[in-house]
Amino acid sequence: MKKIHRITHTHPSTSARTGILSLDHGDVVTPAFMPVGTNGTVKGIYHEHVHQIGYNLILANTYHLYLRPGVDVLGQFGGLHRFSNWNYNILTDSGGFQVFSLSGLRKIQEQGVVFQSHIDGSRHMLTPEKVVDVQNVIGSDIMMVLDVCTAPEIPHKEAKIAWETTRTWAQRSYDHWIQEGGERNLFGIVQGNFYQDLRKESALAISEIGFPGIAIGGLSVGETSQQFADYLGYTTQFLPPDRPRYVMGIGTPDYILEAVANGIDMFDCVLATRSARNGSVFTDDGMIQLKKAAHAYSQAPIQEGCTCRACTNYSRGYLRHVFKANEMIAGMLATEHNLTYLHTFMKNIRTAIDEDRFPEFKKSYLERYYGGS
Amino acid sequence: MKKIHRITHTHPSTSARTGILSLDHGDVVTPAFMPVGTNGTVKGIYHEHVHQIGYNLILANTYHLYLRPGVDVLGQFGGLHRFSNWNYNILTDSGGFQVFSLSGLRKIQEQGVVFQSHIDGSRHMLTPEKVVDVQNVIGSDIMMVLDVCTAPEIPHKEAKIAWETTRTWAQRSYDHWIQEGGERNLFGIVQGNFYQDLRKESALAISEIGFPGIAIGGLSVGETSQQFADYLGYTTQFLPPDRPRYVMGIGTPDYILEAVANGIDMFDCVLATRSARNGSVFTDDGMIQLKKAAHAYSQAPIQEGCTCRACTNYSRGYLRHVFKANEMIAGMLATEHNLTYLHTFMKNIRTAIDEDRFPEFKKSYLERYYGGS
Repeated sequence: MKKIHRITHTHPSTSARTGILSLDHGDVVTPAFMPVGTNGTVKGIYHEHVHQIGYNLILANTYHLYLRPGVDVLGQFGGLHRFSNWNYNILTDSGGFQVFSLSGLRKIQEQGVVFQSHIDGSRHMLTPEKVVDVQNVIGSDIMMVLDVCTAPEIPHKEAKIAWETTRTWAQRSYDHWIQEGGERNLFGIVQGNFYQDLRKESALAISEIGFPGIAIGGLSVGETSQQFADYLGYTTQFLPPDRPRYVMGIGTPDYILEAVANGIDMFDCVLATRSARNGSVFTDDGMIQLKKAAHAYSQAPIQEGCTCRACTNYSRGYLRHVFKANEMIAGMLATEHNLTYLHTFMKNIRTAIDEDRFPEFKKSYLERYYGGS
Repeated sequence: MKKIHRITHTHPSTSARTGILSLDHGDVVTPAFMPVGTNGTVKGIYHEHVHQIGYNLILANTYHLYLRPGVDVLGQFGGLHRFSNWNYNILTDSGGFQVFSLSGLRKIQEQGVVFQSHIDGSRHMLTPEKVVDVQNVIGSDIMMVLDVCTAPEIPHKEAKIAWETTRTWAQRSYDHWIQEGGERNLFGIVQGNFYQDLRKESALAISEIGFPGIAIGGLSVGETSQQFADYLGYTTQFLPPDRPRYVMGIGTPDYILEAVANGIDMFDCVLATRSARNGSVFTDDGMIQLKKAAHAYSQAPIQEGCTCRACTNYSRGYLRHVFKANEMIAGMLATEHNLTYLHTFMKNIRTAIDEDRFPEFKKSYLERYYGGS
């Protein structure tokens, strides 16, 4: 099994850990947040700025890229790195979640999944093998296996069937990946809905296959934060500590802290960029909404001390104005802020772990975060 | 009368000229194109990039800024330069055109104009004096007088009444500006619709008042390009050569060349930025539409040799993809291209004038531009 993650420090009394993830386009320090660039662009920000902030691993979506621009175009350009001029690491989601959440139709068959394009309604089939092939064309530094996502609160029987398909597909994905040369990295995905027996079985079985990294799917889908924490902690205990662990779809400071405490190394979430475009920005005192009238005369930056383009050049008053006027610069600046904020936040988390004061950091951060405006 | 424009060279056989416009936030070389930043932001691009391209004079709109964020906010921040963190020159349009084109209601009275906000339908009155006051709060390096814009093809009688109001308002604006200290610069606006007698009368009368610069309004409102050229040439002959001349609302290479040939020094137009957001970009072979399928596999830049962020980093294929996917980066990159293209174009025009080969430059540029794709 390929070893790509070197743990540099583990906090003595929690599972929090720092490490270095070695990928083809550079080392990534963990725990790491990955900005989402669905279509091969992180919305509202130049790639060069994403990198200037400090990110060298972003996420893109196989589902979207497969539909548009399509494998032909990506192949012609020699993959997504060259096409999008992003010369650092790319992780691609497999499409399992997008087929579940975006497609008008989803037919799970033994062979794969039939779905309808959310763009033009055309029908397509993705199989575990095809998803690996597409990601090989994309040139993803980390590929994900095709999985079956499920809604929360479905019956045990349904959840079990879905998980069993996920298991078979995971093995087929792995076999196909190895057969095609085992280039770069393929991660497995743990499913099992909100059933402990299925989560345990899934964590053990996916770990067994030999993927260089393991993701936990099916969390942060509408459950309470307590349920999230419970299932995350429960699942993670069955994962081998030597492999990078990735929780899919989380990205608020409180969820990130919870995940880090449970030994998670990687996260992604559209929230940082999506909420930025709607005027919601991170501060140490919680999220604030820039469109509010309260900011009209404010000469303060979003967050005192933040080094981003928005905070070093513009007041909340100006940002409110451009949001109210629906100006593109509003979302552009808020995006730079949120991504900078999360990057600094992750850096502070890593330092706190390395200095054996992660629980104290978590506690004091959350006190201010929840006590804020 | 304030002298702010020094002619550095006039082409011997046309009226084309180069010069230096001295303003409070730095010298501007002319002929100059001004990017439009209606709400105190040029759409889709950072102020620092606008300046990096080479612009040091942008346009903002009194009408929009008066309605939002309002004079109170702008006053509190010490004007638009500080509010928007643009530390170079700003010209503000008076609102005369916006009241004409955007407001649901426009009642021209002797005192001023009553109109309805296009944002919330609220009623407002702008008088010539108030418009100067608002622009003084904005801190515009060049303020424009309130004028009465008219639609093409209205009867002579109507056009005459409108022009006479414009004349009275121009004098009141000037008097009020002087009374308030005559800070920075106030430009008069020539109107007169498409009637030679009114254009001549207007050009002479506005020139007489003593404004440091003179604008020609009411052109590029739907007339043919021949009509535009005819009325521009006809009007300009009555303007004093020692004052900067500004044609409002033009910004395509062909119209700019025509205006320069007629001795015009300044232009503004939303087209460069608006069409960029729709995927239309300037090339030496005419405008091209990036969304076209023809570009899907193209590894070429928009324009070979262009130094902009889009052309130095991205292919037409990638730009097409992000336009089709409605990604913000599409408009952002196309905006950088169009503004860079026009800046380079203006520089080439100035060099051609200085080297006494402007007519040859104009001819060969237009041959390729109209013969292109």
